[in-house]
This record gives sequence, structure tokens and C-alpha cells, in this order.
Amino acid sequence: MAGRIQGDGGLEIRSVQPFDLAQPGDLTLAAGRKTLEKIEDCPASAVIVPPGISSPRKTLLQVEHPKLAFARLLEHLSRTSFVAKGVSPLAAIGDGCRISPEVSIYPFSFLGDGVSVGNRVTIFPGACVGDGCELGDEVVLHPNVVLYPGIRLGNRVVIHSGSVIGADGFGYVFDGERHIKIPQTGTVIIEDDVEIGANSCVDRGTFGATVIEKGVKLDNHVHIAHNCRVGSNTVMVAQVGVSGSVNIGRNCIFAGHSGVVDHVTIGDDVRVMMKTGISKDVPAKSSVSGQPAMDHREAMRIQAIIRRLPEIYEELKELKKRMKDEG
Amino acid sequence: MAGRIQGDGGLEIRSVQPFDLAQPGDLTLAAGRKTLEKIEDCPASAVIVPPGISSPRKTLLQVEHPKLAFARLLEHLSRTSFVAKGVSPLAAIGDGCRISPEVSIYPFSFLGDGVSVGNRVTIFPGACVGDGCELGDEVVLHPNVVLYPGIRLGNRVVIHSGSVIGADGFGYVFDGERHIKIPQTGTVIIEDDVEIGANSCVDRGTFGATVIEKGVKLDNHVHIAHNCRVGSNTVMVAQVGVSGSVNIGRNCIFAGHSGVVDHVTIGDDVRVMMKTGISKDVPAKSSVSGQPAMDHREAMRIQAIIRRLPEIYEELKELKKRMKDEG
Amino acid sequence: MAGRIQGDGGLEIRSVQPFDLAQPGDLTLAAGRKTLEKIEDCPASAVIVPPGISSPRKTLLQVEHPKLAFARLLEHLSRTSFVAKGVSPLAAIGDGCRISPEVSIYPFSFLGDGVSVGNRVTIFPGACVGDGCELGDEVVLHPNVVLYPGIRLGNRVVIHSGSVIGADGFGYVFDGERHIKIPQTGTVIIEDDVEIGANSCVDRGTFGATVIEKGVKLDNHVHIAHNCRVGSNTVMVAQVGVSGSVNIGRNCIFAGHSGVVDHVTIGDDVRVMMKTGISKDVPAKSSVSGQPAMDHREAMRIQAIIRRLPEIYEELKELKKRMKDEG
Repeated sequence: MAGRIQGDGGLEIRSVQPFDLAQPGDLTLAAGRKTLEKIEDCPASAVIVPPGISSPRKTLLQVEHPKLAFARLLEHLSRTSFVAKGVSPLAAIGDGCRISPEVSIYPFSFLGDGVSVGNRVTIFPGACVGDGCELGDEVVLHPNVVLYPGIRLGNRVVIHSGSVIGADGFGYVFDGERHIKIPQTGTVIIEDDVEIGANSCVDRGTFGATVIEKGVKLDNHVHIAHNCRVGSNTVMVAQVGVSGSVNIGRNCIFAGHSGVVDHVTIGDDVRVMMKTGISKDVPAKSSVSGQPAMDHREAMRIQAIIRRLPEIYEELKELKKRMKDEG
Repeated sequence: MAGRIQGDGGLEIRSVQPFDLAQPGDLTLAAGRKTLEKIEDCPASAVIVPPGISSPRKTLLQVEHPKLAFARLLEHLSRTSFVAKGVSPLAAIGDGCRISPEVSIYPFSFLGDGVSVGNRVTIFPGACVGDGCELGDEVVLHPNVVLYPGIRLGNRVVIHSGSVIGADGFGYVFDGERHIKIPQTGTVIIEDDVEIGANSCVDRGTFGATVIEKGVKLDNHVHIAHNCRVGSNTVMVAQVGVSGSVNIGRNCIFAGHSGVVDHVTIGDDVRVMMKTGISKDVPAKSSVSGQPAMDHREAMRIQAIIRRLPEIYEELKELKKRMKDEG
Repeated sequence: MAGRIQGDGGLEIRSVQPFDLAQPGDLTLAAGRKTLEKIEDCPASAVIVPPGISSPRKTLLQVEHPKLAFARLLEHLSRTSFVAKGVSPLAAIGDGCRISPEVSIYPFSFLGDGVSVGNRVTIFPGACVGDGCELGDEVVLHPNVVLYPGIRLGNRVVIHSGSVIGADGFGYVFDGERHIKIPQTGTVIIEDDVEIGANSCVDRGTFGATVIEKGVKLDNHVHIAHNCRVGSNTVMVAQVGVSGSVNIGRNCIFAGHSGVVDHVTIGDDVRVMMKTGISKDVPAKSSVSGQPAMDHREAMRIQAIIRRLPEIYEELKELKKRMKDEG
């Protein structure tokens, strides 16, 4: 990532801070209109900006993608080298586990039988890994994460506290008197570089696998039901719920509280707005909102009219009255 | 369950698989139009179908309720006999507990004082059972389930990881300066054959009990507040939320993200569509949708008109214009 | 709190019960119209009522704020003196912790390095307290609560089971091929007298702190994203979701399933109705509902017209027909 420095190239930076918190000695980011307008008022000594921005007093670092440059910088600065603490004597490890030498397995974590654990893996206290699970390299299971038996995690998968991977899918058949459970004999596959927030759930497949493809990011309280596929790099914000056997493309973005009924296919690059309820297939590259979901532009048009309904209704009454007077 | 075999009655079946995954040697299910149309293309050797279906090549098993027959078959095949692992020396067991001889209590699970545990119960790692709880036979508490003190579970109750039963109901009185907590001195009663998904919550009663009747099935992330009653065999899909003192009938189905305000009564056999917000009583056998909830057919009619609002609005403007021109 | 007794001032009270459950010998509350109408039919021996209510048979305790008096009474009766059980030998305590002498720290709870724990604190089984956390006096962490490192809790903070405080905020920058994580280096500050329900999440700040001010009450399954501020005494019902950097005032009430997009400011004393989706600033003292959110009275007006749309549409068709006939 190449950049151009405008100002004092020899400036010494104390720390990297967000725009609102930056102090003299800090490097910060101004990428949007709101912050760019306030560059002169910001106490930061240096600012990462898009090309074409100038300042009489600040040292500027002009780059093509300022937000990305800032993130890479932060990522670089916050990178801590992994320190292997080994396997705590207070952890419970099942029979036949294959555990790489460089790991940190904390007290009160539980590994069932036949678990395999890659290099530089961290398993925090209270995490429970069921029989036969396979964890790639550099996996992090935060405290109290639960993996049911037979789950596969790729490399660099991070799962935050309280999330549950591989609980039974929700499937029953009613025989007129009681719900008979459909046995949930499948599994969950979570590919490389997936991060899952706190208290989320990914259910195992009824048969086969529920698949979270590489680079997917799920926020807190997200629910993914049995046999879904979530395409690579798709992002879901908190409290999204996806019913069974939904096929979701790549690079989609689901806003908070949105939901999908079962057996629906959603294409690549779809944007789903807050609280949208999807009940049928959504083509690639579309944006949807509303309950039931529709094209977002159409929904906006309709919403604008809905806001004016009281006035429209008055007009209609007026028309009726005039018709009557005239008729 | 009687069935009629059409084709090779002596066929040997390797495994039972869903339609999409079935291979030669497998038995599968075709119950709906979509799968019935594709029977000849499915590699499965034998197919469970409704009466009246025939095939030139496949061995068919005709039964009155194919999906149910399939579920019973799966249930039968997946039944594993309970193996009592005993009480782990790494579990913490309080004073005065009554624990049946045939149980599996895993490491790092905690039982408070005076807990009673029925036969063939499994308590997985990290589960916490408060003082005085009573667990019936064949109960399963998955890892990290929490029961607050005094909770009663019937027989065959299954609770998935991370669910919390008996936390305090959410009740305060504001005195003008601070919220004073209303002590939550009640309990939770969960009857036989209830299954609760992962990361769900059933709060204890303020007084008396929150009651989940027999055969109820709750999915993940479901919230049931204090003093609710959920009638037998009612099903709630993920992320449903029910406020305090709601009385829900039997055999209801709540779709995802639906919610109910407090002190409402909902009759038997009610269907609640996705994202519905119920704010008043709902009579038995009705279907409701929308926020605020209304009769589902009415909501569908209204929704159809809402979709046409831009066009309707144009017509109204046209009418006005013509009136004006004519007037 | 002064009251006036009408009837038998020497009556002996066996227990305090809610109106529906009260029996002879009990004291109960009748504060609303529904219960006041049924005072004579209630078996309770004594009833707390507002001023001006009389009864031929019951002993009444007239007070200015009956519900509050009842809550204070319950609070007083249910108060149990703290019994310090000490630090369980089955707990794991890190290096350099400062733990007050009067605490109850249960088995399988984990404290990282440098944790400080105030007086009369209870840490239940399976709770995990990250390095450097600070807990004030009389804090209660229910089973399986997780505090990530560096979190600060004030006095009398109560957190129910499964809640996760300080997980990473949900922030990434997409570089065209993958999402680069924005390091979440901030913290969470939870002030005095906050109570958080079960399975809720409060994420740490990206930089700086997510702040939950004193007296806030969050129900179950609530999600508070990075860098939010929730003003003192604000109440959020179950399954509310708040995106990043939202600034919420004091004394607000959020009903269930409501949500807020990021970087919005919400004033003091705002009421947010069930399932509302807030996407822009909300001024103090307003009530909002709908998705997208609007003034609640306006939303009610619009909703009334929406309910009549089928009829309105018929009228419009009729008008058109008459115009055509006449034209």
C-alpha cells in the first residue's frame, strides 16, 4: 500500500487513535466528509486521508483507501505473538486426542475423545469441545464456547464466548399427538478465517453439513439453522436468524434482526436491510428490505407514500365529497 | 404403521438418507411434489412414498404418512442405548443430593445442595444445577446449561448448550430516582418431553411458576419471560420473544422473530407468522401476522394493496387532475 | 413511605403475595382498575391500595404509590444477608489478584491475572473473569458469565447467566478479497446498580469504552455493540439490538425486538415501541414506533389508515368508475 506524505515526514507517532479520541502525538484517520471537514480542529499530529486532501498545519498521509490503510496499520500494531501456555492440569482431555505442541488450553476446558487441535490454538476456560472435533491452526475458542461432537473448524477460526456450534437442528414431525424428533445426524463445517461473535448458534445438519464458508463474519446472537450454507465473506450483523436449508451466496451483508425462512436461495452480493423478512429467493446483487422483503428501492418508494397516507386519505375524502356535491 | 411394498421386497438397505444425498443401496423419502417428480432420477434403491405412487424401476414403500414413517425409522435407527458413565470426580456435587445410580455427570458440572437427579440423566461439562433443582428421568443438560435454584424438569427434557432456565424475571418499579427490583421468588416448571434449543432463556416467575407444558419445543435464542404458560406441544422457532404473564395455548406455532407483549392470552392452535408483533389476545385456531398483529388473510390483502400503492397514488393524482380540469 | 390503615391494624400477616395468588392471611396489592374492582372477591386479608379506596370487609393500607410500596416491602422481606463462602479450592485464581476477604467464589470459576474483587461479591460456577478486570462491592456474576479482560464493574452490578461483557466489537474493512479485522482495543465500563439479564452481550469499544451508566436494566438476549453509551436508568426489554457508537440518553425504555443502527443519538426519556427500527436521531421525550421509526402518534394514525386500505381502495375504484361513467 503506497502513500504520499504531505508535511513532516520525520514526525514521531506516539499512538494510533480514532478521530474523536486523537491527541497531539497521535496518528488518526479522516476518511468521510464529516471528519475531513474537521481536520484542522483535530488535535492529532498526523492524519491518514484520501488523495487530494491538503492541510496547512497537519501532516497528512494520502492513500488510495484510507480506512483500509488504517485497519492494516492497527492490525499490524495490535498483533501479539502467540505464547503457548500448554495444557492446564485443570483441563479435562479425553482419550486419543491429537494436540499440537504449541497450544494454550485453559483450566476447566473440556476436550472429548479423539479431538484434534492444530498449532497455536487457544482454548479458554469453560470451552467444551465434543468428541471427534477437528480444530485447525490458530483457532481461538473464547470462554464457554461449546462445540458439539464432530465439528470441523478451519484455520484462524475465532469463536467468541457463549456461542454454540453444532447443536441439534430444529426438526420434528407431528404424529397427531406428539412431535417426533428428526434425528440430527449431520455436522458443521466452518472454513478458514471465519469469526463468530458471542452467544451465536450454528446448528448441525439434519444430514450432511451446515457450512460456513471462508471469511464469513457473524456478529453476536446470530442463528444459523441446520443445513444452511453461508457463502464466503458474507457478513451478518447481530440477531440475524436464518432458517433451515437456506443457501446464501458470497459477499452478502445482512443487517440486524433480519431473517430468512427455510429453503430459500440468496445470490451473491445481496444486501439485506435491518429487520427484513425474506420469504422467497433473492437474486444476486439485489438489495431488499421490508417484511415481506421486496426490492429496497421499491420499498423506499412505498414507504414514502405510506408516510403520506393521512394526507392522501384526506384528498380522497375531498374528491368523494366533490363528486357527491357535483353528482 | 402399515405399508405396502412395490418392487423388490428382499432388497437390502445400507443406510437411510435424505432425497438429495441418497446413493444406491439407500432408502430415502419422497413426500412432496418436488421430490416425487424426481424419483426416477434419484440414485436411492428404495423410496418411502404416499399411496398411489408407482415407479418402473425403484422399490417403493407406500405408507399413509411418509414423512412420519421416515422420522420414526430415523428415530429407531439413531436410538443409542444409554451408557452410564457415573459421576466424574471432576464434578462438584453439593450436600444432600439424591442422584440415581445410572447417570453420566461430566467434569466441571456443578450441582448445588439438595438436587435430585433421575435415572439415565446426562449432565454435560460446565452445566450448573442450582440448589434444590429436581430432574426427572432421561434428562439431558448439554454443556454450559444453567438451571437457577429450585427448577423442576420432567422426564426426557433436553436442554441445549448455553440455555438458562430460571434467571430472574425482568420486573422493576421506578421510584422517580431508581428502579427498585421486584424480587423474583417464583420458579420454572418444565414438563415431560420438552426440548429447548441453544442459548434460550426461560425466566422464573415473580411469584408462582413459569410453566412450559409437556411436548413443547423451543428453538435457539427463544426468550420466555416470567409467569408465562406455554401450552403443550406448542413450537417456537428461533429468536421468538414472549413478555411476562403471557398465557399461550396448545399446539401453537410461532415463526422466527415473532413477539408477544405482556399479559396477553393466545388460544390453542394459533399460527404466528415470522416477525409478527402480538399486542392483544388472539383467539384459538387463528393465524396472525404483521406488526401490529392482525388476521393473516387480512394482512395478506392489505399487503397486496401496499405493494400497489405507487400505482394507486398515481391514479388518485390523475383523478384529482381530471376533476380539476373538469371542475 | 407513610400509609393509612383502614380496618384491623393489628392483623397478623402470614406472607405477601400477588393479587391472583393471595390467600387468607396474606397481604397483597391492588393498584390498577382491574384489581381494584375485584378487592372484595380476593381472599387476601389485607390489601395495599391507593388513597380514597375503601372496603367493608378488608383491611386496607392506603399509600400514595401502592406498586412502589409493594415493591419496597417485597425487597425488604426478600433481603438475605450475604454469607461469605470464601474462595473455593476448585476455583482458578490468577496471579496478582486483589480479592476482598468477604466473597463467595464458586468451583470452576476462573479469574485471570490482576483481577480485583470488592466486598460481598459472589462469583458463581463457570463464570470467567479476564485479566485485569475490576469488580466493585456486592457484584453478582451468575453461572457462566464471561468478562473479557479489562472490564470495570461498579458496585451492586448483577449479571445473569451466559451474558458476555467485552467481546470484540464487530468491525472489519473489506480490502476486496477479505475482511480485515479492526482491532478492538477498548473496554467496557458498567456503572453502579446495573442489572443485565441472561445471555446478553455488551461489546468492548473499538477504542475507548462502551459505557452502561448507573441504574441501567437490560433484559435477556440484549445486544449492545462497541462504543455505545446507554444513559442512566434506561431500560431495555429482551432481544433489543443496538449497533455501534449509538449514544442513548437517560430514562429511556426500549421494548422487545427494537433496534438501532450505528452512530445515532437518542435523547433522554425516549420510549421505543416493540420491533421499532431506529435509523436516525431521536429527540428527547419522544415516542417512536415502526420500521423505519417515526413519531408514535403519527405511526398510529398511519396504521389506522393501513387497516382500512382494502376499503379505501374500493372507494377509489368506485370513484374512477363514476368519473368514467360521467366523463
